[in-house]
Amino acid sequence: MSPDPELVARVRASYAKQTVMATLDASLTRVEPGEVEITLPYRADLAQQNGFLHAGIVSTVLDSACGYAAFTLMPADAGVVSVEFKVNLLSPAAGTRLIARARVIRAGRTLSVCQADAFMLQDGAEKHVATMTGTMMCLQGGELKGKG
Amino acid sequence: MSPDPELVARVRASYAKQTVMATLDASLTRVEPGEVEITLPYRADLAQQNGFLHAGIVSTVLDSACGYAAFTLMPADAGVVSVEFKVNLLSPAAGTRLIARARVIRAGRTLSVCQADAFMLQDGAEKHVATMTGTMMCLQGGELKGKG
Amino acid sequence: MSPDPELVARVRASYAKQTVMATLDASLTRVEPGEVEITLPYRADLAQQNGFLHAGIVSTVLDSACGYAAFTLMPADAGVVSVEFKVNLLSPAAGTRLIARARVIRAGRTLSVCQADAFMLQDGAEKHVATMTGTMMCLQGGELKGKG
Amino acid sequence: MSPDPELVARVRASYAKQTVMATLDASLTRVEPGEVEITLPYRADLAQQNGFLHAGIVSTVLDSACGYAAFTLMPADAGVVSVEFKVNLLSPAAGTRLIARARVIRAGRTLSVCQADAFMLQDGAEKHVATMTGTMMCLQGGELKGKG
Repeated sequence: MSPDPELVARVRASYAKQTVMATLDASLTRVEPGEVEITLPYRADLAQQNGFLHAGIVSTVLDSACGYAAFTLMPADAGVVSVEFKVNLLSPAAGTRLIARARVIRAGRTLSVCQADAFMLQDGAEKHVATMTGTMMCLQGGELKGKG
Repeated sequence: MSPDPELVARVRASYAKQTVMATLDASLTRVEPGEVEITLPYRADLAQQNGFLHAGIVSTVLDSACGYAAFTLMPADAGVVSVEFKVNLLSPAAGTRLIARARVIRAGRTLSVCQADAFMLQDGAEKHVATMTGTMMCLQGGELKGKG
Repeated sequence: MSPDPELVARVRASYAKQTVMATLDASLTRVEPGEVEITLPYRADLAQQNGFLHAGIVSTVLDSACGYAAFTLMPADAGVVSVEFKVNLLSPAAGTRLIARARVIRAGRTLSVCQADAFMLQDGAEKHVATMTGTMMCLQGGELKGKG
Repeated sequence: MSPDPELVARVRASYAKQTVMATLDASLTRVEPGEVEITLPYRADLAQQNGFLHAGIVSTVLDSACGYAAFTLMPADAGVVSVEFKVNLLSPAAGTRLIARARVIRAGRTLSVCQADAFMLQDGAEKHVATMTGTMMCLQGGELKGKG
């Protein structure tokens, strides 16, 4: 089943406003109800001191993937913000491409909980480098400027 | 008491290798034993969909601050990597400048635990926008390429 | 300034309904606006495999302290539930008494963020054994049976 | 393939020393390499203020499940301690029985990362009530009394 084109358009429109995604060259590579994938080619200027992608950059991509996964299940006029997330770094983020896949594990009226995993493409195989669990909040109308 | 110049030089040398810090225009603004501050001027190209600094960018700066705070208490030939961190977003990261301050709350031989807080400069006052607790790992010699 | 007696009574009434607190012999030892302390005498039947208090028991006390700290700043007819928390274990929970102190670092209409620290009394001195950051949710009226 | 009886015996021997598990009536219901299940019947004296199992009790069971999942992949003479964990509470822990299932997602020489999910049996069906990601540390010989 292909995803609802309106849903995809709505996610892409918000994603396009996340200027940091373009700055990092991160692309939205999949949108399904409750699931989103974002891909980031490795860049040597986004590295930590050993040349691997910085954990914060990995987290940035994971967080956006979680946010938009939650967003796919929210009302059409809602906004989404991150309440909190935690990342465990499993392996150095070495390779040619970062792939972050997020899914909603609990969709609530106000709060959604998402999990996401990050993989690096290493010699054609995916290596699991990080995992995130986060809470995303649905904001409606006038709440969009504040939080909570 | 002013900090040990050798310690500061050691931190600055590693920090200079974190290419992402230069890419984001983040500066190391204070180094003390067990404490580090990193400052990032607001940039519209590092924003989420509402124009605030993206939570992942805030986390990138907090994570580096935690890593280097832990690094100041490690042996001179050690390296540091992040094991995990969690961020709670307290308020939209609006303002002219992000200031991240990290401190070690437990220094161990292998693992250190750090806490860090992020503030945005808003009309001259600091607004608390995020808090992080993370675990940092000390790597010695041959371990520097792997982890754990 | 001594705390509002009505506030203390409201917290004590809810605390009395947390049957697990009596089961563990945990006592509410301080209630202030935005701050709560809970104390648990060491018991050998609440231990992990090395005889220290189990990390989950430490977390149970920290979580209740966070929840009631948030509760002190909520409307009088509200309820509170935990959304998430993270604990870092800093040292074995050895000693005669666990003291958990929580404080609200962000009080919101719907969500509050709390931090809490756990100390064990060891030879008369407090040893810092764990730290928690958690998100607490305010529930009003009909929401009390569900969440989010 | 049935699990190695020596492995199961080793896990059961350590589990038996976790006095809190007997105090709570929690049973080790499955042990496989890299996976552990613990089950806890609902008890009204382990509740929070609305009569549901307290989030800390849910966490206690999840944490032990994570610890023993990691332990199954460690050398026979090693010990295990929790470094940190984070729990997201997804739904009220109402029902007759809590089932916690943990699995290792990264097994390292020193650190292992585990994920665990908690379900409550409600009218014969399992309801997902909480998820945990945690870091477990392998201790060898003389390290067993300290950490890190």
